[in-house]
Amino acid sequence: MPTNKSISRDRSDYPFWTPVSIRFSDQDPMEHVNNVAITAFLESGRVGLFGHIFSGTRLPSRGIVLARLTVDYLNEITFPGSVEVGGRLAAAGDRSMTTHYAVFQGEKCCVVSESVNVFFDPVTRRSTAPSAEIRAVLERALSGPSR
Amino acid sequence: MPTNKSISRDRSDYPFWTPVSIRFSDQDPMEHVNNVAITAFLESGRVGLFGHIFSGTRLPSRGIVLARLTVDYLNEITFPGSVEVGGRLAAAGDRSMTTHYAVFQGEKCCVVSESVNVFFDPVTRRSTAPSAEIRAVLERALSGPSR
Amino acid sequence: MPTNKSISRDRSDYPFWTPVSIRFSDQDPMEHVNNVAITAFLESGRVGLFGHIFSGTRLPSRGIVLARLTVDYLNEITFPGSVEVGGRLAAAGDRSMTTHYAVFQGEKCCVVSESVNVFFDPVTRRSTAPSAEIRAVLERALSGPSR
Amino acid sequence: MPTNKSISRDRSDYPFWTPVSIRFSDQDPMEHVNNVAITAFLESGRVGLFGHIFSGTRLPSRGIVLARLTVDYLNEITFPGSVEVGGRLAAAGDRSMTTHYAVFQGEKCCVVSESVNVFFDPVTRRSTAPSAEIRAVLERALSGPSR
Repeated sequence: MPTNKSISRDRSDYPFWTPVSIRFSDQDPMEHVNNVAITAFLESGRVGLFGHIFSGTRLPSRGIVLARLTVDYLNEITFPGSVEVGGRLAAAGDRSMTTHYAVFQGEKCCVVSESVNVFFDPVTRRSTAPSAEIRAVLERALSGPSR
Repeated sequence: MPTNKSISRDRSDYPFWTPVSIRFSDQDPMEHVNNVAITAFLESGRVGLFGHIFSGTRLPSRGIVLARLTVDYLNEITFPGSVEVGGRLAAAGDRSMTTHYAVFQGEKCCVVSESVNVFFDPVTRRSTAPSAEIRAVLERALSGPSR
Repeated sequence: MPTNKSISRDRSDYPFWTPVSIRFSDQDPMEHVNNVAITAFLESGRVGLFGHIFSGTRLPSRGIVLARLTVDYLNEITFPGSVEVGGRLAAAGDRSMTTHYAVFQGEKCCVVSESVNVFFDPVTRRSTAPSAEIRAVLERALSGPSR
Repeated sequence: MPTNKSISRDRSDYPFWTPVSIRFSDQDPMEHVNNVAITAFLESGRVGLFGHIFSGTRLPSRGIVLARLTVDYLNEITFPGSVEVGGRLAAAGDRSMTTHYAVFQGEKCCVVSESVNVFFDPVTRRSTAPSAEIRAVLERALSGPSR
């Protein structure tokens, strides 16, 4: 399957968006949003993107686990207001998938991030190859215009 | 100043509303939103309400501190989606103010809450009586139709 | 069953203690621990206390739900370091139990809190009267020297 | 200055350790500690390590900002209990430093992580080269036995 490892800061590269409101308690003594809260924003975007990609499939509940997360902090995010988390499928491997995210506050790209998630068998609790149905969904998402 | 201690579950009693998006990580093993996250929702509503009430006044930054919080959990809140936090000024004392909140997910009132906040002098770090300007704002908010 | 509604600030009234380390991200722009983090400290104390009280019983997993939480903020908690959360059973009702907590940072009592928890049937998802075994445990805890 | 990019899973490679207690609310519906909480553990380790390395220096408060975070999730972390976060200085650049972390629950290495932090001028709010004093501290930490 195709691979694209660069994390874009361009809104138009992200087909799926999740809005997240910023909470007062997301802030730390630096008077900006703490990096821990940003990983919660990214998780909201990730869960939203996965719901979008796998909607209508028989992907088992808890059938994907997070294996690796990379976060680049480009600009501060400040309370109050909200952010938008753009997400896209970037690559698919034999047992894993790579997704990219960009967090915008207004027109400013504040964070880009990459997640590697592993397909997981909730019964054996081990990584597994995804079903043919899931692989087809991934290939379609990677080749489509709305990637 | 007038006092109203009952915490209403009626949307029409709350003049100010703050939307808060629910995050995946707000959930706990009970598969509902954890009570800790709910206090973050309430704080978002509180900060929003205070911004609304004190907009345009010379209330010092960090001039109000939380002294007491009561939370009644009526119904579960579930991911995904968002909640709306209604807020209202319920009473004002010599050095404190009492505010009420109701958290709705859709049409369901899930949580009601009362906060007691104390006016605080950031220099002496002690409670203080609010200025005449602030007292006037509170009296107007308590008597007005949009209370 | 007996009832004790006053929330003690005296260490010797709390038979069970849970240490909680403070995290950098618990802080907010006021440069103290945010009230939301404090409810996480209290929950740690509550889960620890319940484990202590109900150890060895057949209380069903998820057989208790939080109905009401009251928190009094007495003194600031500051990073770094840790707190200790003291817990005690304060009262037991037909379908509920009331527990009290005091959060100390060093020798300073910073927070006291009361929780009302309801016995819950995970199958019907409704409140329920606890079993005779659980009632006996509660009565023993309320009357014993280690209350 | 020397560079070491591999993130060790060996306890003996980490000279500085920060214990962090796990909270009930760190868990998510997968009944393990959520990845967002793990970034809070890592931040505790990072702040602890920086305090250790820069103790006694004139590093300005808020003189370091997080630019990049990478987290590898190797094994689940489960409530209750605590983790230990080992930290070490891995490399130092002209305006940045790279640190490594390993999170252990008991004898199991559950997470390894790398942070890139940038030296920051709180006045200009831009990256800056660290002072000669700070550079000397970094070189000593990178060459010493307790690295």
